[in-house]
Amino acid sequence: MAFSPLVDELVESLRCLPGVGQKTAQRMAFHLLERARSGGTRLADALNQAMDGVRRCDSCQNFADTELCPICETPERKNGTLCVVESPSDLLAIEQAGDYRGGYFVLMGHLSPIDGVGPEEIGIERLLGRIREEGVSELILATNPTVEGEATAHYIADRLDGQNVLITRLAHGIPVGGELGYVDGFTLTHAFRGRKPLSD
Amino acid sequence: MAFSPLVDELVESLRCLPGVGQKTAQRMAFHLLERARSGGTRLADALNQAMDGVRRCDSCQNFADTELCPICETPERKNGTLCVVESPSDLLAIEQAGDYRGGYFVLMGHLSPIDGVGPEEIGIERLLGRIREEGVSELILATNPTVEGEATAHYIADRLDGQNVLITRLAHGIPVGGELGYVDGFTLTHAFRGRKPLSD
Repeated sequence: MAFSPLVDELVESLRCLPGVGQKTAQRMAFHLLERARSGGTRLADALNQAMDGVRRCDSCQNFADTELCPICETPERKNGTLCVVESPSDLLAIEQAGDYRGGYFVLMGHLSPIDGVGPEEIGIERLLGRIREEGVSELILATNPTVEGEATAHYIADRLDGQNVLITRLAHGIPVGGELGYVDGFTLTHAFRGRKPLSD
Repeated sequence: MAFSPLVDELVESLRCLPGVGQKTAQRMAFHLLERARSGGTRLADALNQAMDGVRRCDSCQNFADTELCPICETPERKNGTLCVVESPSDLLAIEQAGDYRGGYFVLMGHLSPIDGVGPEEIGIERLLGRIREEGVSELILATNPTVEGEATAHYIADRLDGQNVLITRLAHGIPVGGELGYVDGFTLTHAFRGRKPLSD
């Protein structure tokens, strides 16, 4: 290449970011070098510290700096409700909605036998242990409404069969602010079946 | 936020990359933490080294590790032809096309008085000095076909008025492989005016 080895290596390294190909990596490298050297140094420090320091929470499997994440360290959130999500970004979306105040369990994936992801890999035993120990009364299965997410939810529900735990799933329906004309048939069917009296 | 301070700082730092907002930065951080920790460490090293080590070539102003970039260090490329481009990515595009074998001068911008970018900032004196010293016979003004790029090209041409240097501009016309129906009117006009006998 026409450039210095340092620039080449920077471009190549930036390609480990998701959705970043050769052209985008070049644009990012040039931007950092031309206009944001301090930002680049800050990013390098943040990367080094996060790659070394971030671990899994011992209780909910979410990313954490210490043994327990801030949510699991909050006693008020052990209120007998546990919400199972697939990924930290799902947890974040729920936290940003701001309504739910119980605990979480982050699977960090979903069951996918073809990729070698079984119950062991997503921490099902740890989840079942926590449900027993904490006396969880409601388990909200907030896995994604995909084939794998549904299968994972059903697997967890099966494993809890006969135990005194209320198992719920998030409601399907029309997104708030959405237009009926753009909603797909499956979602509309769910919305019709889940219709409620106006007084609710 | 629900996450660890290390993850928060990583997300915030990633936003210094061009085109990366909050959601994309989150996705990148989670991807690195979940699946690409070694890539993240490599990126941190590459960033640190590039931010510290990359400087400007003393001759062409392009990014370089040493005083002269690899192109300026190659004697065969001092063949009396000099190509003026706005940015390293323009240079890279020309290098990847593979046809041009002369030298370069990278303005690292264009004249833009409203942003405080004058001839001093883009190194016009250094360019004129190089043209004199190296006995450049042809100066190819490959600035972008934008208002600022054209103005910069005209300014450089004016400064060389009366000197024995052939000044050229890249041809405008229909992109190779493009369809006529999608080409804009200005480009078509240029293509018509620049038409050539078939034998060329």
